[in-house]
Amino acid sequence: MHGSMEGDTVHVPSPARERFYDNRGYGHPRGDALALSPVEAAHLLFRGDLEAVDGMGFRSFLATTDTLVRFLVYKDLRERGFYLSPARDGWVGSDATDNIDFVVYPRGNGPWDGVTEYRVRVVGERAAVSASSLTETLAVVDEESEITYFSVDTPDVTGSTDHSLPENVPGMLLADRVVLWDAPSVLYERAFYGQPLSARDASSTGSMSIQCSLVEAAHLAERGIIRVDAGIEGIIERGRVVEGDRFDRRRAVYSTLRDQGVVPKTGYKFGADFRTYARIEHVDELDHSEQLIRVVSQDHTFSPRDLALDGRLAHGVRKRMVFALTDATGAIDWRSISRLTP
Amino acid sequence: MHGSMEGDTVHVPSPARERFYDNRGYGHPRGDALALSPVEAAHLLFRGDLEAVDGMGFRSFLATTDTLVRFLVYKDLRERGFYLSPARDGWVGSDATDNIDFVVYPRGNGPWDGVTEYRVRVVGERAAVSASSLTETLAVVDEESEITYFSVDTPDVTGSTDHSLPENVPGMLLADRVVLWDAPSVLYERAFYGQPLSARDASSTGSMSIQCSLVEAAHLAERGIIRVDAGIEGIIERGRVVEGDRFDRRRAVYSTLRDQGVVPKTGYKFGADFRTYARIEHVDELDHSEQLIRVVSQDHTFSPRDLALDGRLAHGVRKRMVFALTDATGAIDWRSISRLTP
Repeated sequence: MHGSMEGDTVHVPSPARERFYDNRGYGHPRGDALALSPVEAAHLLFRGDLEAVDGMGFRSFLATTDTLVRFLVYKDLRERGFYLSPARDGWVGSDATDNIDFVVYPRGNGPWDGVTEYRVRVVGERAAVSASSLTETLAVVDEESEITYFSVDTPDVTGSTDHSLPENVPGMLLADRVVLWDAPSVLYERAFYGQPLSARDASSTGSMSIQCSLVEAAHLAERGIIRVDAGIEGIIERGRVVEGDRFDRRRAVYSTLRDQGVVPKTGYKFGADFRTYARIEHVDELDHSEQLIRVVSQDHTFSPRDLALDGRLAHGVRKRMVFALTDATGAIDWRSISRLTP
Repeated sequence: MHGSMEGDTVHVPSPARERFYDNRGYGHPRGDALALSPVEAAHLLFRGDLEAVDGMGFRSFLATTDTLVRFLVYKDLRERGFYLSPARDGWVGSDATDNIDFVVYPRGNGPWDGVTEYRVRVVGERAAVSASSLTETLAVVDEESEITYFSVDTPDVTGSTDHSLPENVPGMLLADRVVLWDAPSVLYERAFYGQPLSARDASSTGSMSIQCSLVEAAHLAERGIIRVDAGIEGIIERGRVVEGDRFDRRRAVYSTLRDQGVVPKTGYKFGADFRTYARIEHVDELDHSEQLIRVVSQDHTFSPRDLALDGRLAHGVRKRMVFALTDATGAIDWRSISRLTP
């Protein structure tokens, strides 16, 4: 069979609908004829099911249409046993088509069944992916044409850590940290704030010297738990000096997590902002942290390579990778990513 | 005993030399008296071995000197059983003191033995570490005052992959990749260039369709192995369009690796530029890749957090993390980093 380009659509006459749509889920019916997106036409050309489009075979068609990257993903999903449709308005029922390239149906289903398995966005590894466009499934095609799928979800970020804490513990602002010289040990041992200055301090005397990060100290000072001569403002000012705007974003995320019963600690060793614990009873009985949090602004653009790095690392240490998208008001959208095998 | 500040040095009178230097490796002798760096004095104050410096105890001394971060590392290394000296000219024999903070002696040795175990540079997690200053041992203090040590080495980056390759294989430049429609399979199967378009292509017919990245294609075209209508210049131009200057840097690293018998493939899944194989006989017998390569310019500054992320990931997948520092002439300095437990 032969097709012809009409704008951004390939028209294939009757009986194309029966042959390609009814039986195999390609395209969008036009009576007994069929409309195909270029990527679908490329796949039928590749398989030899379509002979030519406007006289072009597969190779020429690829060369004159800009479909290679999406073709690779389309082909991969077909080879995995899925039927899928290009995300064009009217072609995929009532599914919204913003920011996505394909609607993928559950195995055994097709465009006529009204059920969706994945909503896939295709990007090259060098694309910039804006935070707001992180969609449900991301298919990244790397420069050597291998495909990685990520599932993007909205995680529930709540925990159940809750301890009674003291008030007005004196602290000293020292460079980019705050030292509490004689702090009630509950602050570290149960609420997991800071880090003891010395292992010998972790004693039964009930008090210890604790070093806090500026973000921990700002949170504690705002709640009246610690008191520093420089004041809350002094801590915040120091934080902005050492890390600029990021300090306010990280502080908003830190406090939101604490207020939701989650304990954030530095994620430095994982290259993240925080690692988090949903429930801490005592530091001597710490489980592994469950999440890694990276704080970014709402208008951040991700590089797929960074997503790969974060996702891979988190998977390797069995944690969930979570992005905290922050705006100027301190509001936070949470997104988690994980590798997906369709 | 009491000390007194003299410029950037703490002077402690006799018998301080015998007590602190001869027996425990602190400071630099001045006859029977002793000169201490502030971080050493802080440690002696912390331990209670020194009562005060100019009337200041440990807490006040820390507050008036900017020594907290280095103090934490000094204390950690002492607790691990090392003697160490501040890297001051004349205090550490003939050791160069550029870019480092401490000279650490092998356990059981001291400043009088003339042997060095580590040369340590201390940085906070927010510091910018210039590529040229990546020193032998890096001690990173994170915002919660935990310390991570990295060993920086100059790796040998050579391999023994060598195959006879065809000439003038025709290719087509398609968006940001080059497709070789009918290529001798040796190109992929033995030399591991590109990626087959289709699994069905990996056949015994001796020829297959191979997709190459632009960096692979530029290398192959420059050596006359493939031929593209757009020419070598067309490939390079396309590369610069899609990734700017980075393309030339990555191309220099790619070709250097290939010329040294090492096979670079995309490191995308690890968030790196390349993963490498020292020897490939046939793709069906691939071992794990041994190295991850990140390409940066000579004047790049690393964030310790990125080093932590790269180092952690590489360790998790049992690969060596290598930075290729490139200059405008294509010359490359290689640096590897790995976590170190002193």
